[in-house]
Amino acid sequence: MRIDLNADAGESYGVFTYGHDGEIFPLVTSVNLASGFHGGSPSRMREAVALAKAHGVAVGAHPGFPDLVGFGRREMALAPDEVYADVLYQIGALHAFLKAEGLRLHHVKPHGALYLKACRDRETARAIAEAVKAFDPEVPLVVLPGTVYEEEAKRAGLRVVLEAFPERAYLRSGQLAPRSLPGSWITDPQEAARRALRMVLEGRVEALDGGEVEVRAETLCIHGDNPRGPEVAQAVRKALEEAGVEIRAF
Amino acid sequence: MRIDLNADAGESYGVFTYGHDGEIFPLVTSVNLASGFHGGSPSRMREAVALAKAHGVAVGAHPGFPDLVGFGRREMALAPDEVYADVLYQIGALHAFLKAEGLRLHHVKPHGALYLKACRDRETARAIAEAVKAFDPEVPLVVLPGTVYEEEAKRAGLRVVLEAFPERAYLRSGQLAPRSLPGSWITDPQEAARRALRMVLEGRVEALDGGEVEVRAETLCIHGDNPRGPEVAQAVRKALEEAGVEIRAF
Amino acid sequence: MRIDLNADAGESYGVFTYGHDGEIFPLVTSVNLASGFHGGSPSRMREAVALAKAHGVAVGAHPGFPDLVGFGRREMALAPDEVYADVLYQIGALHAFLKAEGLRLHHVKPHGALYLKACRDRETARAIAEAVKAFDPEVPLVVLPGTVYEEEAKRAGLRVVLEAFPERAYLRSGQLAPRSLPGSWITDPQEAARRALRMVLEGRVEALDGGEVEVRAETLCIHGDNPRGPEVAQAVRKALEEAGVEIRAF
Amino acid sequence: MRIDLNADAGESYGVFTYGHDGEIFPLVTSVNLASGFHGGSPSRMREAVALAKAHGVAVGAHPGFPDLVGFGRREMALAPDEVYADVLYQIGALHAFLKAEGLRLHHVKPHGALYLKACRDRETARAIAEAVKAFDPEVPLVVLPGTVYEEEAKRAGLRVVLEAFPERAYLRSGQLAPRSLPGSWITDPQEAARRALRMVLEGRVEALDGGEVEVRAETLCIHGDNPRGPEVAQAVRKALEEAGVEIRAF
Repeated sequence: MRIDLNADAGESYGVFTYGHDGEIFPLVTSVNLASGFHGGSPSRMREAVALAKAHGVAVGAHPGFPDLVGFGRREMALAPDEVYADVLYQIGALHAFLKAEGLRLHHVKPHGALYLKACRDRETARAIAEAVKAFDPEVPLVVLPGTVYEEEAKRAGLRVVLEAFPERAYLRSGQLAPRSLPGSWITDPQEAARRALRMVLEGRVEALDGGEVEVRAETLCIHGDNPRGPEVAQAVRKALEEAGVEIRAF
Repeated sequence: MRIDLNADAGESYGVFTYGHDGEIFPLVTSVNLASGFHGGSPSRMREAVALAKAHGVAVGAHPGFPDLVGFGRREMALAPDEVYADVLYQIGALHAFLKAEGLRLHHVKPHGALYLKACRDRETARAIAEAVKAFDPEVPLVVLPGTVYEEEAKRAGLRVVLEAFPERAYLRSGQLAPRSLPGSWITDPQEAARRALRMVLEGRVEALDGGEVEVRAETLCIHGDNPRGPEVAQAVRKALEEAGVEIRAF
Repeated sequence: MRIDLNADAGESYGVFTYGHDGEIFPLVTSVNLASGFHGGSPSRMREAVALAKAHGVAVGAHPGFPDLVGFGRREMALAPDEVYADVLYQIGALHAFLKAEGLRLHHVKPHGALYLKACRDRETARAIAEAVKAFDPEVPLVVLPGTVYEEEAKRAGLRVVLEAFPERAYLRSGQLAPRSLPGSWITDPQEAARRALRMVLEGRVEALDGGEVEVRAETLCIHGDNPRGPEVAQAVRKALEEAGVEIRAF
Repeated sequence: MRIDLNADAGESYGVFTYGHDGEIFPLVTSVNLASGFHGGSPSRMREAVALAKAHGVAVGAHPGFPDLVGFGRREMALAPDEVYADVLYQIGALHAFLKAEGLRLHHVKPHGALYLKACRDRETARAIAEAVKAFDPEVPLVVLPGTVYEEEAKRAGLRVVLEAFPERAYLRSGQLAPRSLPGSWITDPQEAARRALRMVLEGRVEALDGGEVEVRAETLCIHGDNPRGPEVAQAVRKALEEAGVEIRAF
């Protein structure tokens, strides 16, 4: 049994430091690095790539909406062509730093509102998948299982990597619980670790609205930007290792 | 005898159209495409790459200072590390659009104030050369001959491509005449064509401050953003062709 | 009988020129000037304010979404607090240029996707109205009649100025026809002029889906950024003047 | 005897938090708030203005170069007209938040590289002074004594407020020691407090290159973004109060 632990990172911008990259990188096996649209200035991207290299962490691109002030968390009505061009641009920008360091682009995972929009808007999902395919059809796309986003990634012929969120509550329907619902966010590291374990070992977890929900996962997302992010990563990792789960990049 | 004609292009940004790409691309053999820092939004970059492909024009990256409002024409006190990261980022962003279209990155030529700073600031020049080398040591760098920029490009082991400016007046010293000097800018297409011809056939041209100056050139820059840019390109091209000069990308 | 003619303007950004301000300003009685979020860099704002002053045109603020690359035409999921802060910021930035020229802020009219969102999203409308009120409760807000935007502007105690669009087709319901519908956009200057006249003299116009629709208007919007914008403005103005309608700012 | 303590603040941008505003505001008597060019997004500006209001701190504008990624710390070759427009824009943007809260614009103090450039480039200094004067000739400008910046502020008829830096070493010439010199930066709170006291009580302080230097000050700048910024502010304030110096806004 094996699993990947991923974290969004490289989101600092110039003097503005964001997240806890230095503490998170030793604990995860893959990172999704920003490319300047929602965070991640060129110098900070370079720094994040060097950190990933030092820790032997697999590096993926983390394209977002062009909304630095909103950190890519506000949905934008981009036309599919605009999504395609924005994603391609961001992949390329990150790829240059990887190429300069002799690393390869390991995967792509959209950020924030772009990820969420892709999960329910087929045209957005398709534009993302087409951009990845146009850049390199061998690069896998990290997706939320059971969404049009997963469907479109597959239809484009890309390898999909299924993602689950131990820190987020799920609904019985399989969807992530909206952040507005009480209990939608798990902040206790031990509880997150317990959930991660169930997800990996049993393929299911308790739903917020009662009962259980199936959770298929090849990678678990750790939110390194939470105040307790590093603690959560530590607890999840420890629990998985103690249960004999191999933690390594997909 | 042969020469390349190059033009800065792809500098439109969203709804903001800049230059005369549609008229210029059929007349030149290489273009330098912006990557978003001084112009060139993702969708407009994609459009410019498609146009270049349609016309069989060689495509280079055209990295500039991060100054959209100033169009990269205002010198900025970037540390060499910042220049390196900014150039690498911009090369990568453009490269993604080329890769998606099955094209290769043909060369790099810095834009505006970054180009001019590289000509006289060794650290800036070195940072640009190192960024190109880190991305791909086979990619040539377009340089102004006789500058520290040429020296650093060579020192990095890059192929340099010498550039001359038929629309710009030269001083006897070999430098471009400052734009503030009367007569520093040649706007008449026939005069630009005559100068282009002398540069290519004789390797020299009249200096603004008297006498003549040696001009070594493997590529001539045409300013497509001038109101008469397309006319100049037409006249230069015609004069060279009539003189039996082969016009093709370096 | 009197009417105001307004145009969106001052949307150029650095070297990027947008619209036809020089031709439009002599033909309209009020302009809505951008403040940098979707267009309008500081130097170009200053230029537009000077032009408005020279032509004696009333100047309003034209706040948009923070989306320069999308020209503020793409809806964004901003929280009401974010709308409030963005609108207040943009009003203030423009106001400084007016104050420096001894002019007053005549009105506020949101731009593009922000305007459209305000017409159907009450919270957005309220946030805009609250921002204007907080800055100066005497400043009127230009609104589309019959919308929640009009309601919220009134509820905030602001004076509302009703706007109509001679170049846009209306539906029988009173709404603007979506741009995707054939015939939704009137490009012929004479036809736009004829419609403008009906709107002002009869308070009604033909609907795209049959029959007629009531149109209440204190100001008519002319799209100066269309290729034929100045022609339309000319034709509308001429038709109104010949019919004895007084054209002056509200 | 009285003195003002000022701090640069309001430089957070969207999710990116910068500095220690919450700890610094209770300790100083005036703050200089960013307006978006080097930091300070609209929502964070609003937040900073509310914080200043809650603490009764005088609020000035803190305009910088348009260089968010470089935090306004990199000199840019702006034409005087561009400086004028950029400063006016930023003053206006901040002023709107003050107006909305019933506060007045207390002063203007340029940020980072713009401040430093104004100290030695007369045209930049004049452009800043003209912008402030155009907005409101009653608003004072915070200046470094003995510079062309002070001269131009006076020539424009503005009230100047002399500033000194207890955390920065001075040269015998009266200039601030370049940051590259060892010892140019005082990080120990007690030492900063001792220097602040000498500056206020004796009007002089030890020079880094030997001897002493006259320091005229009506306001002392505290760097709230340093890790020990709040400690320094505390120590300086305590030392001044114990010496019977009245601490209040100029």
